[in-house]
Formats: sequence, structure tokens, C-alpha cells
Amino acid sequence: MPQGTKPLLQVLTGRRVDPPPVWLMRQAGRYLPEYREVRARAADFLSLCYTPELAVEVTLQPLRRFRLDAAILFSDILVVPHALGIPVTFVEGEGPRVARLDPTQPLPPFDPEAFDRHLAPVYETMARLATALQGRRETLIGFAGAPWTLAAYLLEGGSSRDFAGARTLAWAQPAFVDALIARLSEAVVHFLDRQIAAGAEAVQLFDSWAGCLPPPLARRLVLAPLGRIVAELARRHPHTPVIVFPRGIGQLYPEALTLGAAAVALDTTAVPEALVARAAGGPALQGLLDPAVLVAGGDVLVREVQRILEVLQPVPHIFNLGHGILPHTPPGHVAQMLAAVRGERIPPA
Amino acid sequence: MPQGTKPLLQVLTGRRVDPPPVWLMRQAGRYLPEYREVRARAADFLSLCYTPELAVEVTLQPLRRFRLDAAILFSDILVVPHALGIPVTFVEGEGPRVARLDPTQPLPPFDPEAFDRHLAPVYETMARLATALQGRRETLIGFAGAPWTLAAYLLEGGSSRDFAGARTLAWAQPAFVDALIARLSEAVVHFLDRQIAAGAEAVQLFDSWAGCLPPPLARRLVLAPLGRIVAELARRHPHTPVIVFPRGIGQLYPEALTLGAAAVALDTTAVPEALVARAAGGPALQGLLDPAVLVAGGDVLVREVQRILEVLQPVPHIFNLGHGILPHTPPGHVAQMLAAVRGERIPPA
Repeated sequence: MPQGTKPLLQVLTGRRVDPPPVWLMRQAGRYLPEYREVRARAADFLSLCYTPELAVEVTLQPLRRFRLDAAILFSDILVVPHALGIPVTFVEGEGPRVARLDPTQPLPPFDPEAFDRHLAPVYETMARLATALQGRRETLIGFAGAPWTLAAYLLEGGSSRDFAGARTLAWAQPAFVDALIARLSEAVVHFLDRQIAAGAEAVQLFDSWAGCLPPPLARRLVLAPLGRIVAELARRHPHTPVIVFPRGIGQLYPEALTLGAAAVALDTTAVPEALVARAAGGPALQGLLDPAVLVAGGDVLVREVQRILEVLQPVPHIFNLGHGILPHTPPGHVAQMLAAVRGERIPPA
Repeated sequence: MPQGTKPLLQVLTGRRVDPPPVWLMRQAGRYLPEYREVRARAADFLSLCYTPELAVEVTLQPLRRFRLDAAILFSDILVVPHALGIPVTFVEGEGPRVARLDPTQPLPPFDPEAFDRHLAPVYETMARLATALQGRRETLIGFAGAPWTLAAYLLEGGSSRDFAGARTLAWAQPAFVDALIARLSEAVVHFLDRQIAAGAEAVQLFDSWAGCLPPPLARRLVLAPLGRIVAELARRHPHTPVIVFPRGIGQLYPEALTLGAAAVALDTTAVPEALVARAAGGPALQGLLDPAVLVAGGDVLVREVQRILEVLQPVPHIFNLGHGILPHTPPGHVAQMLAAVRGERIPPA
């Protein structure tokens, strides 16, 4: 399928497509038995991300089961700090551990050559995916963690419910944290630039921990850096759309619509009615569906899909979840969801 | 001080007071060495809540250090399910564990006599506090967890980052979850009624996990039940103001202003500018300050206090945090904060 006719790329260039194109955050993942089988073959989670043969395989798995409109590179947002030389480990069932940055020490330097050497397998994965998807309907999406979300892990030394330590540093050591955000922004732009060069047709910036910040910090550390990255990518790749996902940003979502992104991804708690009016002529809207209703399945899932279709009907819309698919989601419910989006007869779960 | 002249009660009856009255969520707590000393004398956290002598002591401790405008009963939101016969334990450094409800079994019954027997020490604590505070400036605040937050723990079997299990049940088993919310609402109204009878001059409903719900569930399980509880308390105690705290409700905060509460507490991520205009003639606004900036202290704390004072200046305002005080907060920073709120010379930390 030529780029101009891919449903997802049409929406990302401001056209309404009905029914909307669909993909799912974490569509390649633990809810699929075939993913768990491949995952078991890799020594650890990061090895899976860094082995093109396996990463290509898991990226393509959901496309074999479901008619989706995108393939998203299988990787992890923490490969960027890892490529900057910061120790990152994934402990099963615990989430990532990241070496905590010391604000009295210099920032890790960004050396593009060393960075690209480290991430060469990711670029190789993307190139193989571009080849595999040639002529098909799916848009190939690249992604990166947004600077604040990466900084949150580095300042906290891992995951956290509320990143209180990272927030405290953001207040108390603004020069250090702003320099970190600038350094990470440089690496993120370079990383997405390389993904696009390798074949990504669109990219998404995941700001998963945007929602823990009060407005003054969210404007400084989430919205402003996202806007700068979108602008720099537009300069380098004017025809590659960028999706921003400032998860949990709540009352600041209207401000996220003005960043210049091709689409804004809405989390499960966003109130779409308030955004549709403001989005007119602006970015496409993506997201919203609660991954928990996808676990529930059945009539309530169908009704919720219909509610979202209706409310986002006036704007260019990419159907998606408001957060990653949950590991215990029955794959049959994804098929139900797709049928509901496309107005087809609902298959039994 | 007669009730009519207490600064906090004035604001809760719709008057602006300048500088605003101040209290802090979790002002009696681990950041105070004198609290940790008393805590060490109790066998466990719940024993501390159920021993009037100790609970009164820790409630009053922050008032000895700081000139605050309220004392809030020292207790925990989980005493309500505990009094309904549901096993609750607190594991140091892990958060609470609660026996998970089985949706195929009948709900725990609400027997007011057994409930009051269980909670008699809490009522006794409140009565002693009322006596201790007679004639003083501080308003005595009672509280309860809101039904959804209690239900979230009961459906999930403890705390969780996103309460995905509880949300899934809310979608998949609406009759069961709605009945649970109704049962918990009945218990919460009774509990607050008894606290008011024992001397509470105002009460706050903590909906700590409101923010994990998508709008359809938040309207059904957070906003509607809070509105019903506010109405029922107004019927029984028309002169006792109710504060609601639907934490993390983001774009639904404007709807929370219409619940009939005397005040709406804003979490750290709320955007106050958008609410001040709508709040005119409506509820007082409370909260906002990031507990992390209180840990940071110094100039950035003072500037943030001044920003909040300025933006909430047009409405009746109760100065408070947007979330509970963090355990590693230097007590000297609380003194700095109070001086900044009152425009006094800043004491060294």
C-alpha cells in the first residue's frame, strides 16, 4: 500500500478516516502466548530488545492475529539512558532499576557514535521491519521515552508511585534537572532521527510520568521539551508525523494540543468532550480506551468502544488504548474490540 | 475562640480570609520525631488509631510546633472496612493489605451497633480532642475515606499503582460494585455522623484513588457517591461543612465544584486558574502545594507558596498541600511555609 493511502498516516496528516485506524499500546507483549514463548528464548528483557531477529518477530506477532493499522517497534524507553552508559536492569515482576544520577556529578555525556553503536541492533530491527511491511497497510511507528519520563527514572533510581524524589530535585536543583532534560532531549531527537532514517513512518513520544508533576513543573519539564523536540523533528523530517503522549496530564491536555504534534494521545482519564472542540484543525486524537474494559470484554467493551467512536467522531481519530494493554487480557477481547470499532459482527471471545 | 470566628470555619462558610487558614494533610505523622516516638509505643499502626490516649497525643503534636488552623483526627481511612469485619493489616514499608472481596459472595453487612463498638475508641479520641481544643483557634476536622477509594482497596486486595483489578470489576460487575459503593456510603455517612456528634466541626472525604478511573467510572463511582454523601450529611448536620478531595480527577475537577461541598481540595496537579473562575460563589478551594517543594524548602518553596496565594486570592481559600506531607520533610520547612503564607519573616530552616 503506498504511504499516502495508509489509514493511520492519513489521520496523522489531518484527514478523518471512518472507521478510524487502530493500534494498541504494547500490542506486542505478554498477553500473547507466542510473545511469552519468544521472550523465554531471550536471556533477559533488554536482550530481546537488542536481538533484531527476536524483536522483529514479536513486533509482527500481533499483526498475524489481528488486522491492525500499525506495527510499533518492539523496544523499551530505557534503551536511551542505557545507550548513554547508565546501568539499567529489569527485574521480573519489579519493574526497571536504573542507576540513580548524582546531582553533584557531571551529566553523562552524549556521544552520538557510541550511542549509535549501542543502538545499532534497534536500527537494524527497524530496517528489517520496514522491509517486512513493504506494500502493507500497517504504518511503522518508532518511539522514544520523553525526556521527563527518562529523567524521572534517572533521578529516582527506578520506578516509583509518585516520583517524589525526582520532583524534589526538579524543585531544588533546577539547573541540574534542566540540563539533564536538555541532554536527554538531544539523545531522544537523535534516536528518533535514526529510527526515521531506518524506516519509521511516524514516531511517538511516551511521557508516561508526566502526570506526577504540578503545573509549573509540567510546563517546564514536559510541555516545553516536547514542543522543542516536535519542532526539531519537523525541521529534520517535515513529512514524518509525531505523536505525543503526556500521560496523566489532566487539565493541561488543552495545552498539549498546541505543541505542533500531528496527534496527541489521550490517557484513560482524559475527558475527550473538552478537547474535541479545541482540537478542530489541530492535531489528531488517539487513545482513551481503558485497558481494564478490554480485560472485562463483552457488552460493556462494545458500549465503551462506541462511546469513544462517537465522542471523537468530529476529529481525525486513531483508536487506541489510554495505557498499555494489560498482561492478562484475553486475546479474543482484542478481536471483539476491533470488530466493534469497525462495526463488524462481534466474534465470540 | 467561638466557632464563628475560627478562620477555617469562616472560609468553609464562604468568606475570604487573608492570609488564608492553613493545615496540612498528614500534619500528624512520621516527619515529626515526637510522632515516631509515640508510634514506637504502639504495637502496630491500627493500635495507634484505636488508642485514644496515643491518637489524641499525635493529633495535637503538630499544633505544639506550628500555628495551624486545624487539628485533624489521627486515624486511617481503612478503619471503616475494618469495622465492617474485613481483615486489614499494615505492613511496614509496604502499605496496607486488605482481604480481597469475592464478587460471588454477599457483601459484608453493615450493622451500626457492631460498627460503633469497633470504632468507639475513634469517637472517644474525637471527644477528647474537642475538649482539648475548646476555645482555641483550631478547627477540629473529622474524616473518612470515600467509597470508591475504600472499594478500590477491597476489590484489589490492597494498594496498587493503578487498581487495574478494581477497575476491571467496576466494568465487568457493575451491580456488585455499585452495591459495594452503596454499602460503603452508608457506613461512611454513619461514621462521619458519629464523628460530628463527638465534636468534629468539619469533615473531609478522601477519595485518594479517584484519579485511576476513566470519566464514565469516575462520574458513577466518585462524583455521584460524593454528591449523595454531601447531601445526606447536609440533611443531618446542616451546619457542619464537608470538604471533598477527589484526588487526581484532572479534567473532572470542574464537575467536583458542583457537588454541594463547602470546599473542594485540589491535588498537586490541579490547574487552579481554570477552577477559580468557575468556583465564584461556589465552594472554597483547598490544597495544591506539592509536598516535594516542601521537602526542597528555601526560595523555591516561598515562590511556590506566593504563586498559590496569588492564584487562589479571588476565592475563599484554605492553604494546604495537594497530597500528604512526605515522611522525610524537614519540620523547619513547615515553619518556613507558614511564614510565607502569613507574610512573616522567614525563619531559618
